[in-house]
Formats: sequence, structure tokens, C-alpha cells
Amino acid sequence: MKIIIVGATGTLGKKVTAALQGQHQIITAGSKSGDLQVDIISTESIEAFYKKTGKFDALVSVTGSGHFGPLNTMTPNDFKKGIDSKLMGQVNLVLIGQHYINPKGSFTLTSGILSNDPVLYGANLSTVNGALNSFVIAAAIGLENDVRINAISPGVVEDSPGYFDAFPGHIPVTMDRVVAGYLRSVLGAGTGQVVEIF
Amino acid sequence: MKIIIVGATGTLGKKVTAALQGQHQIITAGSKSGDLQVDIISTESIEAFYKKTGKFDALVSVTGSGHFGPLNTMTPNDFKKGIDSKLMGQVNLVLIGQHYINPKGSFTLTSGILSNDPVLYGANLSTVNGALNSFVIAAAIGLENDVRINAISPGVVEDSPGYFDAFPGHIPVTMDRVVAGYLRSVLGAGTGQVVEIF
Ligand SMILES: NC(=O)c1ccc[n+]([C@@H]2O[C@H](COP(=O)([O-])OP(=O)(O)OC[C@H]3O[C@@H](n4cnc5c(N)ncnc54)[C@H](OP(=O)(O)O)[C@@H]3O)[C@@H](O)[C@H]2O)c1
Ligand SMILES: NC(=O)c1ccc[n+]([C@@H]2O[C@H](COP(=O)([O-])OP(=O)(O)OC[C@H]3O[C@@H](n4cnc5c(N)ncnc54)[C@H](OP(=O)(O)O)[C@@H]3O)[C@@H](O)[C@H]2O)c1
Repeated sequence: MKIIIVGATGTLGKKVTAALQGQHQIITAGSKSGDLQVDIISTESIEAFYKKTGKFDALVSVTGSGHFGPLNTMTPNDFKKGIDSKLMGQVNLVLIGQHYINPKGSFTLTSGILSNDPVLYGANLSTVNGALNSFVIAAAIGLENDVRINAISPGVVEDSPGYFDAFPGHIPVTMDRVVAGYLRSVLGAGTGQVVEIF
Repeated sequence: MKIIIVGATGTLGKKVTAALQGQHQIITAGSKSGDLQVDIISTESIEAFYKKTGKFDALVSVTGSGHFGPLNTMTPNDFKKGIDSKLMGQVNLVLIGQHYINPKGSFTLTSGILSNDPVLYGANLSTVNGALNSFVIAAAIGLENDVRINAISPGVVEDSPGYFDAFPGHIPVTMDRVVAGYLRSVLGAGTGQVVEIF
């Protein structure tokens, strides 16, 4: 399979990439890193990116950021960060990518536990993650040519100790389980699934 | 209580307004209709609006629209419609309104069944509704001074027959049940709830 991994150099992305490399043709991408560059915040950049990748079998998105901070000082502009990056960046990878993906291909996006289980300061990322989970269940019935789509929703991951203080009482999930979620989506047959790694 | 109802002239809003009128001080609002005008798509308009309403006890949002159409022709710009209107419009009513609401006040937003139960053509509204549901559970733990927030998530409503064809096999919900959901949020004590009227 020809698999594009956006965010391939990130904490999660590098482990997902390692697990898929060897047996598949991998194209890694990031805004600065990877085989090809794409800025998911720009639809023009995404269009140009798919023109370069050409047809593909799987797109794995392990990227996107949001605003993290107290609600009482959160502004519409702060909130827009997660909307433009982690939400619309990933949605646009699908809306544009659906015209480049091969039949029976798959999209795998990344949401996260905050959709269901909020933490203080996390309102923007909760919103974005809830949006992504609902997007995949809806897009799954709208995609044509047997193209699949799933979201991987990890808890805070053991490799990101910098986040632990913001997630009191959350038991970090192992990277092995997270990587398994991506493999299930890319190599399995499910669609419209939110794969919770909690 | 001083209750602001944005979208008070809409299909749902006029019934919610009728149920609250008489026993409370109601301020109705719409982009063109109502006691005061506000365009939820514009943060400047929302700021100016709250300057006019002054302090209040409850904000009920029964408004916001999105794009409805096939996924295979859906563009990033189409998708942005629901993000800017039904999602960010309502989120910004809260982010800005938190600085005007009285202690123990409440925000009641409107999402909808598509977050959980998608229909063909509904990917934009599914996404927006899922986002709103996760926003309220997260904002509930971030709001201060005992301010509450909930989302009402109705199925397709009996008073909107124009939507029935787009919701095959969905049994329209009665307006009485929908109105009861809003009353539960405004007059009750719950917070961080997604009140499903399915
Ligand atoms: N870490 C966790 O514990 C955790 C838990 C749950 C969910 N998640 C989610 O998992 C995803 C990845 O998290 P992570 O911790 O692995 O992030 P990370 O270490 O910060 O990695 C981000 C990756 O995305 C790329 N990237 C950044 N901005 C980009 C842009 N505008 N366009 C394209 N690529 C861009 C980066 O490469 P460049 O520098 O080259 O751009 C990098 O490869 C995020 O959505 C995060 O919310 C993470
Ligand atoms: N109808 C259903 O079956 C159903 C089911 C589930 C969920 N919902 C949701 O419930 C909400 C209301 O639906 P509805 O069917 O009652 O809608 P509607 O009949 O179209 O009414 C919309 C209301 O919002 C106001 N409005 C429109 N644009 C606005 C803007 N930019 N800023 C401020 N106010 C604006 C309108 O007044 P002006 O004309 O003066 O702007 C009107 O009062 C929507 O979020 C919808 O998705 C509806």
C-alpha cells in the first residue's frame, strides 16, 4: 500500500511510521519535516500536497494542535486555533483527499480522550476532538468507492510526560496500544469507528 | 430571571420563548428579528450585543446553521459555514457572554442528533453537533461562579416537515419534549449535560 503519514515526525507519528515502514510505501509529511511538506492549516497547501503525492491508499493524520488554557481568559481567537489546525486541518485532508484516494483506501484521523473526559483548560481540544469523532461517523456513510475513515482517540500517552500534570488522575496509555489503534484502522476493515485508546 | 433567547423567532425558538414568557424577563434576539439584533457569526456583533443586554441570568441559543449536501462535492468553504455559524457562533456567545452572565446563571446551546446518528449529506452538521456536545462538557468544568452550561440535542422535530426526507426512518420528536429539554437546562440545576431528545 502507498501510505501517507502527516505528522510522521511527531511523538505519536514516529512510532506509527515505524510500525508501518518496511511493508508499505510510506510518504512522510509535516509542515517542516518529512519527505514532503504540507501545512494542514492552508487548503492551498493541501491541494498542492496531493498533487505531489498523487493517488494513494491510506492517509494517516497524526497532527493538529489547539489552544490550552483557562476558559475565563479564552478568546474567540484562541479558540480558532484548534478549529483551524486540528479540526479543519484534518477535515480538509479528507475533503480534498477524497478526490485523490484509491478505491478501498482509508483515512485515519486523530482525536483524543478530551471529547468525553474533559480536563481544566481543555475546552478547545475537547470541542475539536468531539467534532472529529462525529465527522468520521458521518463521513463514513458519505465517502464513495468503499473508502473508509476512522478516528483514533488516545488518552494522554506515556511518551508525553510534559502533559501529565494537565491530566490529573489519567493513567497514561502505552504507545503500543496507540500504535495498534492506527494499524487496526489502516490495515483492518472498519469504517466510521472511533477507536478509543483510554 | 433575565433570559436572553437568541433565535427566538425560529421554529424551535418561538416555542421555547412561549414556554418561558410571562414568568421571566425575556430578551429575544435574531440577526434581523427580536428585541435586539445580533449576528452570531461576528464576534464584534456579539460584544456589542452583550453591552446592550447587560448582565443576565440565562442565555438560550436556538440558532446556527450549517452546510447540507453530498460529501463528494463538499469543499472546505462549504464546511466552514457550519463551523462559523452553528459552532463558533454558539461557542462565542459563551466565551464572550461568560463576562456578562450573573453568578449561578446558565448557558443553553443547541446541537442535534446528527452527532451520534448521521444522515447522508449531514457531515458538516454532525461535526458541529459533536463539537458542541463536547464543548459543553468541557466548559462546564471551566466556567466560574457556579455558572452552568448544557446542550439540547434534538432529533428532527415534528414542526420541520421540510427536513423529514433527509432523515429517512427517523421518527420526528414532539415539540413538547424539545421545549422540556430547554426548560430542564434553564430552570434545573444540571451542568455539562447533553440533553438528548431523540
Ligand atoms: N501526545 C499525546 O499524549 C496525545 C494524546 C492524545 C491525542 N494526541 C493527538 O495526537 C496528535 C499528534 O500529537 P503529538 O503529541 O504526536 O504531536 P507532536 O509531537 O507535536 O507532532 C506533531 C506532528 O505534526 C506535524 N505538524 C505540526 N504542524 C503541522 C502543520 N500545520 N501541518 C502539517 N503537519 C504539522 C509536525 O511536523 P513539523 O514540525 O514538520 O510540522 C509533527 O510531525 C495531535 O492531534 C494530538 O492532539 C496526542
Ligand atoms: N428544526 C429541527 O428539526 C431541528 C432539529 C435538531 C436541531 N435543530 C437545531 O436547532 C436550531 C434552530 O433550528 P430551527 O429549525 O428552529 O431554525 P430556524 O427556524 O431557521 O430559526 C433560526 C433562528 O435563528 C435566528 N438566526 C439566524 N441566523 C442568525 C445569526 N447569524 N445570528 C443570530 N440569530 C440568527 C433567526 O432569526 P433571524 O432571521 O432574525 O436571524 C431565527 O430566530 C439550529 O441549530 C438547528 O440546527 C433543529
